[in-house]
Amino acid sequence: MQSFHPPNRVLMGPGPSDVPSRVLKAMAQPTIGHLDPAFVGMMDEIKTMLRQAFCTDNAMTFAVSAPGSAGMECCFANLVEPGDEVIVCINGVFGGRMKENVERMGGTAIVVEDNWGEPVSLDKVEAAFAANANAKLLAFVHAETSTGVRSDAKALCQLARKNGALSLVDAVTSLGGIELLVDEWGIDAIYSGTQKCLSCPPGLSPVSFSPAAADKILSRKSKVRSWFFDLSLVMAYWQGDGARTYHHTAPVNAMYGLHESLVMLHEEGLQNAWGRHADMHQKLKIGLENLGLEFVVEEQYRLPQLNAVKFPDTVTDEAAIRKDLLQQHNLEIGAGLGALAGKVWRIGLMGASASDANIDKCLSALSQVLAKQ
Amino acid sequence: MQSFHPPNRVLMGPGPSDVPSRVLKAMAQPTIGHLDPAFVGMMDEIKTMLRQAFCTDNAMTFAVSAPGSAGMECCFANLVEPGDEVIVCINGVFGGRMKENVERMGGTAIVVEDNWGEPVSLDKVEAAFAANANAKLLAFVHAETSTGVRSDAKALCQLARKNGALSLVDAVTSLGGIELLVDEWGIDAIYSGTQKCLSCPPGLSPVSFSPAAADKILSRKSKVRSWFFDLSLVMAYWQGDGARTYHHTAPVNAMYGLHESLVMLHEEGLQNAWGRHADMHQKLKIGLENLGLEFVVEEQYRLPQLNAVKFPDTVTDEAAIRKDLLQQHNLEIGAGLGALAGKVWRIGLMGASASDANIDKCLSALSQVLAKQ
Repeated sequence: MQSFHPPNRVLMGPGPSDVPSRVLKAMAQPTIGHLDPAFVGMMDEIKTMLRQAFCTDNAMTFAVSAPGSAGMECCFANLVEPGDEVIVCINGVFGGRMKENVERMGGTAIVVEDNWGEPVSLDKVEAAFAANANAKLLAFVHAETSTGVRSDAKALCQLARKNGALSLVDAVTSLGGIELLVDEWGIDAIYSGTQKCLSCPPGLSPVSFSPAAADKILSRKSKVRSWFFDLSLVMAYWQGDGARTYHHTAPVNAMYGLHESLVMLHEEGLQNAWGRHADMHQKLKIGLENLGLEFVVEEQYRLPQLNAVKFPDTVTDEAAIRKDLLQQHNLEIGAGLGALAGKVWRIGLMGASASDANIDKCLSALSQVLAKQ
Repeated sequence: MQSFHPPNRVLMGPGPSDVPSRVLKAMAQPTIGHLDPAFVGMMDEIKTMLRQAFCTDNAMTFAVSAPGSAGMECCFANLVEPGDEVIVCINGVFGGRMKENVERMGGTAIVVEDNWGEPVSLDKVEAAFAANANAKLLAFVHAETSTGVRSDAKALCQLARKNGALSLVDAVTSLGGIELLVDEWGIDAIYSGTQKCLSCPPGLSPVSFSPAAADKILSRKSKVRSWFFDLSLVMAYWQGDGARTYHHTAPVNAMYGLHESLVMLHEEGLQNAWGRHADMHQKLKIGLENLGLEFVVEEQYRLPQLNAVKFPDTVTDEAAIRKDLLQQHNLEIGAGLGALAGKVWRIGLMGASASDANIDKCLSALSQVLAKQ
């Protein structure tokens, strides 16, 4: 057995995105104990910087010690009790995953469906609330990674509040890439990932819970169907003055990386980061259209950081093209997922990958492989 | 906000252990996609090397994308269905956590209790099987990190098999440090952590399931109470020829680290690693006894890699001594946990921390701080 040395890829898929060398170097610093006061101090800085990134004052803001899918499960496991009715909006892969989460926690999912590539319909959600007075939670995806569509999180959260329900939002692909105002929009529970617009390796899931969500969690009638994700236990490690109580062993070096990526976001400025994603999207869009690629999502609902495009009819083997991009150009773009598998490509412009150099590389490589068709 | 630079500690607590620079450097290599063929090839090597470390041919051998506590939950979530009776052996903190896991999955825990610091009693387990004919799973901790005791995993698994039950074993602290023969002993499900005797940062949990355990999982009547840990989904990512199906985004750089630590274990040889832990324990033991520290566990049941010791009566503020060790000597040792909190120290000799240099450092620092009492 030999040491593994990865190839040097340019990452323009749906995540992970390119990781800056500052973040990689931060992760290679010596491991210290997960209860070391120096580490606890760094955790506090992560909490502070995550609050800034989420635009929230929520005390219960931290990083779940596992990837974004685990952050999703952490939210549902804590907020859903057996018998609870939850309105779940499905307009792509990740809404479907939310439904699975509700059901595995013993809840009943009331599904609001929209076409893949379209945003969640406010009218349908309003009708779902009207027809289900017991629904106390609304769950939806802010930025659907499978289609590249943005839903109106602010309006959806207002609808939830108007109907006496909490809101639970998937922001895996939105955090750090587009406007996301947790407190102003009234989001009650939110989860994200590190490997998208934060440009960190995958492995942690930033989450935040409003005081109302925290109340709901702490007043549950039944135990959470998970020991690992039970926030009444996890928070003894992440909160409180001074010494923290052991719950699980946090991924120490991954947290170094998240800390550094948040410092970099702080240095750039959150609004500047949003602006950069928007600007780079404009540049990529012109190039893709020049190559004859057509966007899946209507312009007004498009995510700048996730560009789902249909390829020309001349392309008969799309997987072969992606393979060519990867092996000949060291460029990763994403395949279609779920209902869009084999039908679209997903070109990510997330975090450090949202750069002029990456776009030039991507357009040049794409034009070469498409010219061979 | 500034970049974080951790102090340089010598880690001799209950984990994480010292991480060799080779492993840290491996983790700082460029991130690639979690579905990149180069990454999938590395995953296959991790599976092969984990099988060697566990001494098993189990096909279902891989690393859960979260720390050891999540590996525990993965095992219980998949192997326990509502109404199942599970015999759970408690002789320390982690047996208690197993009981919580059983109950949160809807099972009933039949508890076999032993004193903290003593191994699991075979007679009590035999009696529990005799009294509970429906129990189809026996769960116990091989190496109790809270006390430093080793239980007879081989005999316990034989008991389970004799009674038509599967066995589920916590090997968080044993993998790579002491003899552990999954196939020969007939272990059906096992989980470990990376941050103990494998000398990797925390964040992943190696697991393995026997064909009988895999059968049980794949023939469940109810869905697993977790989407993230559901092995019927997870294995689509970890198994199969060629392309793998996306389930969650694996912690790419953490896996680079695990791969490198397994290469290092392969280079040293598994038996040599066990021998080194045993030898270093003998050296540490003499030194600790010379300092007047007394072991919690009887010699024949002691774990070489986790030395729980009672301190002299002259010590009135044990936390102050640990603080002194950390701040003046950059040495981390572990506090007591659970019933032993404030009563013992836990001195780890795990992985790279099981070295002459660390022991010399530890004994020297301890003698200095104790002399001040």
